[in-house]
Amino acid sequence: MAEAAWNRHHIISLEDFTPHDYETVLKTTLSFREVLSRRNKKVPTLQGRVVTNLFFEPSTRTRSSFELAAKRLSADTLNFSPSTSSLTKGETILDTAKTYLAMGTDLMVVRHSKAGVPATIAQEMDRLKAGVGVLNAGDGQHEHPSQALLDLFTLCTSLESDTPTIDLLKGKKIAIVGDILHSRVARSNVWSLTACGAEVHLAAPPTLLPKQLLAAFQNSPIENGAGAPERRLFLHWQLEPALAGADFIMALRLQRERMTQHLLPSLREYHQRYGITRDRIARCQPTVKLLHPGPTNRGVEITSDLMDDPELSLVAKQVTNGVATRMALLYLMGQSQKSS
Amino acid sequence: MAEAAWNRHHIISLEDFTPHDYETVLKTTLSFREVLSRRNKKVPTLQGRVVTNLFFEPSTRTRSSFELAAKRLSADTLNFSPSTSSLTKGETILDTAKTYLAMGTDLMVVRHSKAGVPATIAQEMDRLKAGVGVLNAGDGQHEHPSQALLDLFTLCTSLESDTPTIDLLKGKKIAIVGDILHSRVARSNVWSLTACGAEVHLAAPPTLLPKQLLAAFQNSPIENGAGAPERRLFLHWQLEPALAGADFIMALRLQRERMTQHLLPSLREYHQRYGITRDRIARCQPTVKLLHPGPTNRGVEITSDLMDDPELSLVAKQVTNGVATRMALLYLMGQSQKSS
Amino acid sequence: MAEAAWNRHHIISLEDFTPHDYETVLKTTLSFREVLSRRNKKVPTLQGRVVTNLFFEPSTRTRSSFELAAKRLSADTLNFSPSTSSLTKGETILDTAKTYLAMGTDLMVVRHSKAGVPATIAQEMDRLKAGVGVLNAGDGQHEHPSQALLDLFTLCTSLESDTPTIDLLKGKKIAIVGDILHSRVARSNVWSLTACGAEVHLAAPPTLLPKQLLAAFQNSPIENGAGAPERRLFLHWQLEPALAGADFIMALRLQRERMTQHLLPSLREYHQRYGITRDRIARCQPTVKLLHPGPTNRGVEITSDLMDDPELSLVAKQVTNGVATRMALLYLMGQSQKSS
Repeated sequence: MAEAAWNRHHIISLEDFTPHDYETVLKTTLSFREVLSRRNKKVPTLQGRVVTNLFFEPSTRTRSSFELAAKRLSADTLNFSPSTSSLTKGETILDTAKTYLAMGTDLMVVRHSKAGVPATIAQEMDRLKAGVGVLNAGDGQHEHPSQALLDLFTLCTSLESDTPTIDLLKGKKIAIVGDILHSRVARSNVWSLTACGAEVHLAAPPTLLPKQLLAAFQNSPIENGAGAPERRLFLHWQLEPALAGADFIMALRLQRERMTQHLLPSLREYHQRYGITRDRIARCQPTVKLLHPGPTNRGVEITSDLMDDPELSLVAKQVTNGVATRMALLYLMGQSQKSS
Repeated sequence: MAEAAWNRHHIISLEDFTPHDYETVLKTTLSFREVLSRRNKKVPTLQGRVVTNLFFEPSTRTRSSFELAAKRLSADTLNFSPSTSSLTKGETILDTAKTYLAMGTDLMVVRHSKAGVPATIAQEMDRLKAGVGVLNAGDGQHEHPSQALLDLFTLCTSLESDTPTIDLLKGKKIAIVGDILHSRVARSNVWSLTACGAEVHLAAPPTLLPKQLLAAFQNSPIENGAGAPERRLFLHWQLEPALAGADFIMALRLQRERMTQHLLPSLREYHQRYGITRDRIARCQPTVKLLHPGPTNRGVEITSDLMDDPELSLVAKQVTNGVATRMALLYLMGQSQKSS
Repeated sequence: MAEAAWNRHHIISLEDFTPHDYETVLKTTLSFREVLSRRNKKVPTLQGRVVTNLFFEPSTRTRSSFELAAKRLSADTLNFSPSTSSLTKGETILDTAKTYLAMGTDLMVVRHSKAGVPATIAQEMDRLKAGVGVLNAGDGQHEHPSQALLDLFTLCTSLESDTPTIDLLKGKKIAIVGDILHSRVARSNVWSLTACGAEVHLAAPPTLLPKQLLAAFQNSPIENGAGAPERRLFLHWQLEPALAGADFIMALRLQRERMTQHLLPSLREYHQRYGITRDRIARCQPTVKLLHPGPTNRGVEITSDLMDDPELSLVAKQVTNGVATRMALLYLMGQSQKSS
């Protein structure tokens, strides 16, 4: 495994990730993609260590991806399930995390419906000098870094399969379409894609894309001496300008509960105005590719036909790369523990 | 492991299984029964490969049996649990299956309350040239092949413990008693047992054994040149003629919801007319043995006393053989992938 | 691993544990604590064997602890989950246990909301000459032996980290505070602590500590020729006399449902009269330590401040020692199988 400098004990947010960090993730993921092409996909990297999935918010897809990543690194895995948990018995979230720490957890993968929980757990682990790494697997509407990193790997390898680098994204136009307001996936992707030099165009109905959002991203704290890439971010209430000449489209999942919250009239109307269709794709670059973090509502965010078009859709690749990316992240965090 | 010719990527239905297929399953299961008699019951057959249990219908018993079979073959296992799944988020079944495919699943074990789902997934895998094997672990009222195959192994080894062959069943009378109409277990067993030359007698109340059922089995497509065994199948609305001279009795589980569906007056009345009791056993062969796929309603399908009689009951053997049979099936499907 | 004489196939209750038994558990746990201090915490002790967690009562914390213990001994683990189980389909508890036995379970870890279930399963396993060990992971208000044994290890190692022996507890005063009546943890601890020569003081409101309880413990069957230690047990309806000069305080979890059962006026009033606070700790020995089996209601049983005081609180140590203790118990039961 290529040893790249990496000193992040936790992966909570991409807001302060540097271009070097992204390159390290790409390079490490590439190594694990190679591992996954073998018949025996297991490596002994985390043999005898414990990865605990603390999923306070239920999930099958992301939990399975992390569980498989951990198993392929030969770690033992523990799964915390909220339904049958001590939380209903009045235990605090930090006490739950500390219980799993005390059992011998080395790495924690944390998902919670409230923003900030993974960061709070990470701080507590540091305060206790526990040496445990915390990975944010989605916190409220805040961030979902591993999704954005697997998206990054998918974008870069779709441009150069065997030599993905962030430079490939320089000047590329990427449209992110859908419920931007509530999307932790969008938020993490904005950080990574703009940091890598892409031009990011967000498109959504005004109720799901308030103007204030732009300010949130523009107050970015990144100012590294090596010359931070300028962040180029654009907001659109119409789909068309976002798609015009786009190299990639990322459709976001539309939560059905947005309807009952009166943020959307209907799925049908949403699809008419913001759904990705073959007609609309024609406005993009001829080489345009489609991404979606899943699970999809077929015929809402994207037509079923486009979803299944192997020339256009990178959706299955995203899932496949998800396992390799998560192996890479767990590996890097484990290395960071070793050297600390 | 004995290498027998096997070219089934999927195991969906026994309707077109040939005598040669059954012999291969028996022989392979025998090998794994030997493995399971060792102190260390693990073999490296599927090391580094992933078996995913896609149980859209909840199950503990069958899922545990498949999970243990996969672990003993050194596979990594993923469990999809419907309650916390993306399905409630609007994802289609095929998209769920394709997500687990994209994560790197090699073999899928699928259970669903609707008939045809495993077949549909298998077709989609083939269309995608995914090289993934699909095993039907119970689909609606259609089939449950692994249960019938473990029953077959249990029947044959009860006749000749170390040399089970299908010829042992030729001319044997086997009574299948209970809710035939809704039973995927019965359906799979009818295919396997009649194909192996046994005489199968189905006994149930008329509401649970409609005359039309016979037609379904009689339109069997099997006509192999080597002389397909004649299917000998009989329907009875009384228990007594089915038991007379029987070599084996398979009692089926009675779902309690049949009562609320007005298909049965009461458990008590069912037991009086169709329950297996020591008195009724007297009509069978003196060597008669009892099977039940579990879980049992003691005192309904079979008296508690008979259930626990080690001379009569093969119920525990069925469970034990279930693990060996499922190891054999996963092994054979894995071999079929290798050669493809 | 130190080979100590051990002939218990099952661990159901501490009522008849001898001082020798406790010493063996301490010594074996010490070995596994050493294993857990290594980077690779896995040993091949139970390679190829199956540990089944039969948790009829939902649990995350205890199940995770046993699961991790089993995995670190290289066992395969099966988890029975009641919600999706055959029990709702009418299967009896013994039939469920026998199903997992038939699948090839070597060791069963059983939790049930009713007292006596693990003992009943153990008897059935013996009747069937199954050679399967049963460990009680909590049965109703009866016992929770592994919790008391990890408490014992925690107490003894807090006195002498590298040479824990039961003699260290001779004459020590241990206060157990809280809902004694409903606590299986308290019950197991009374057996172990009094057997090891400690003086145990129980403190609780009269509704949660009826006078008759004393009789239950005084009718102890232990009368071994080598001179059973005299059991010194005291009941208090006030907290203060229990704490006066205490070496250790074990606070018990207060179930919130006790309020609706009219056994307690309010959490607030409970805390005022029986909560462990810094003021009250002043009555104890200066070296006093605090234990709690978890999960805790912060600010009810113990103030949040004391919970987190690393000088006072052994709570995290209990969790850590829990894994080592459970590895020791599974190991000892496994050894007992081998020699039988």
